Amino acid sequence: MIDIDLSPALVIGVGLVGASVGCALTRAGLTVHLSDVKSSHARVAASRGAGTTTRPDPQTIRLVVVAVPPAALAEVIGMALATYPNATVTDVGSVKGTVLAALRHSGADLARYVGSHPMAGSQRVGPLTANADLFVDRTWVITPHDTSAAHAVLDVQELARLCGGRRVTMGAAHHDEAVAQVSHVPHLVSVLMAGRLTELPPEHLRLAGQGVRDVTRIAGSDPQLWRQILLANAAAVRVELEELQADLARLTEALDDPARVAELLERGREGTRSLPGKHGLAPVDYANVVVEIPDAPGALARLFADIQTAGVNIEDLSIDHDLEREIGFLSVQVAPDRVPALQAAMSAAGWTLRDREPQL
Amino acid sequence: MIDIDLSPALVIGVGLVGASVGCALTRAGLTVHLSDVKSSHARVAASRGAGTTTRPDPQTIRLVVVAVPPAALAEVIGMALATYPNATVTDVGSVKGTVLAALRHSGADLARYVGSHPMAGSQRVGPLTANADLFVDRTWVITPHDTSAAHAVLDVQELARLCGGRRVTMGAAHHDEAVAQVSHVPHLVSVLMAGRLTELPPEHLRLAGQGVRDVTRIAGSDPQLWRQILLANAAAVRVELEELQADLARLTEALDDPARVAELLERGREGTRSLPGKHGLAPVDYANVVVEIPDAPGALARLFADIQTAGVNIEDLSIDHDLEREIGFLSVQVAPDRVPALQAAMSAAGWTLRDREPQL
Repeated sequence: MIDIDLSPALVIGVGLVGASVGCALTRAGLTVHLSDVKSSHARVAASRGAGTTTRPDPQTIRLVVVAVPPAALAEVIGMALATYPNATVTDVGSVKGTVLAALRHSGADLARYVGSHPMAGSQRVGPLTANADLFVDRTWVITPHDTSAAHAVLDVQELARLCGGRRVTMGAAHHDEAVAQVSHVPHLVSVLMAGRLTELPPEHLRLAGQGVRDVTRIAGSDPQLWRQILLANAAAVRVELEELQADLARLTEALDDPARVAELLERGREGTRSLPGKHGLAPVDYANVVVEIPDAPGALARLFADIQTAGVNIEDLSIDHDLEREIGFLSVQVAPDRVPALQAAMSAAGWTLRDREPQL
Repeated sequence: MIDIDLSPALVIGVGLVGASVGCALTRAGLTVHLSDVKSSHARVAASRGAGTTTRPDPQTIRLVVVAVPPAALAEVIGMALATYPNATVTDVGSVKGTVLAALRHSGADLARYVGSHPMAGSQRVGPLTANADLFVDRTWVITPHDTSAAHAVLDVQELARLCGGRRVTMGAAHHDEAVAQVSHVPHLVSVLMAGRLTELPPEHLRLAGQGVRDVTRIAGSDPQLWRQILLANAAAVRVELEELQADLARLTEALDDPARVAELLERGREGTRSLPGKHGLAPVDYANVVVEIPDAPGALARLFADIQTAGVNIEDLSIDHDLEREIGFLSVQVAPDRVPALQAAMSAAGWTLRDREPQL
């Protein structure tokens, strides 16, 4: 176990991610200074236990964590390297290559800079929900570059360790390709699909089921943040979009060929199984038991008490609501062989079972 | 209130949908005969209260509901029209135009045929979970054609009414265009995105968050059923895919233009809001409160009891699990202004709050 002292540290930009880093480092015993263009954010973060809003002596700062929005990263990192001559500087941005390129272009000495990307939280929200556990057991990507000093890399690894993250080290380009593939392009696909809905008449939308809702859900998130992320990673995203375009062309052309359509559908199912499932195990096909719940206080508590009484282990669950009646449905996912037991128990307890298979 | 007697009725194909129609009609006092190529299915459906497996006198049947897989629809409908000379014949298939075309091609007299599509359930599953309430308050599309007899249309409307569905009448082509837009193309988009994941190295997939899981979830459903649906609706699906292809090309080209990217993201968000939300109201942005739950019996029941005690109305919730540790997280969606109250109550009750904002 190497012994690295990162105190005092400075967090610049205390949205949810920055403030939570402050909470984790403070809990680890470090002195943490907080700064944000919105001084109210800094005060809220301090009140959440993220650190102090007092100004530090620039000479003494050992670590600077830059947690500002993507568009401001390069400038703030460069400023931090200049202002805190004895500090290792890292950032928590979700795109690494363009920031590194901009810093190189600035001609700054980047030995003390090592990028990182904790896969948790979002710059979307403020520090109000900040907590020291945000990064516990979550992937924390560390992206050293060819001029990073060894001690700086060790400092950022220690930062990730103190925050409880699972450390993964890769180059900036490699990282940006990966997030383009598993995050940015999926987001754009959702946005494209959702965009098409704007052209549909209401009577068509009335036939919409759960499937289109799943596919388009993330298209509802903050356009301003995503604009910054996509512009910062445009190169990697373009490569993936061109692949997707080729796949889409192949699909359109294959539409009348049963064998090729079946192939494409199988490939898609295989893809869903390539994502790590619960507890890292291969995904299991659970069976759904759906119970009608009145929108009444206490109903869920009673329902769960009855489910637990049935002694059936709940693998997953979700609630959705009837479009026009004031009732909801609780979908409980259980191992297929437990379905009869749970259904019997629910009926015995007086609950109404319903079916909510995906609409076709 | 017109008085139409649809008894005795015959349901051909007793998967979940056919068997549930049988349950609803039986509950309404009709005599319902059940038939399925799998006689075990017919027996299970009968045991669920869907009707009887005894053979009917063909002359007496007033209504035939064909609920077989898409590829077999036209043939079975044609057979039913020939075998049951006094019956109105309908089907519950999710595509209407190709079936109608095939029937016309066969030269059969289609006066007694009127298509329909109840937006609930799925031919995917068997009759075990059949129930008379499957269609209650769900959209039930009725698709008359230009040679449908008026009495046949009235019969199918009565069928939908007896099942508790919300009746919507539109032409077959109109229906197929709508389901291509809100169901079939969203499914293919999910399949395409999921298919791309099959080419990624595990260390890239490790960076996958909730977003890509949402987008690709429905790609995991039955390829055989979807192959039949897509082939049956290939023409309408192709039109939509070509529009999508144009949008994708525009997006790829716009990637470096902040203003156009922002525009596309805004359009996507607008699209998510065009889908009917809870109780038919415009969707609300709820805030998430996430609580850590041990995979232990009774934990959920205790948790819900504590949430209810807090007196906060739960708008929605979901559970997901840590990839490597044996714990889960319950995401509770509440009105933003109720967040502090709920968080305070949860902490006071000894629960650990966590943040699970979408990963970027």
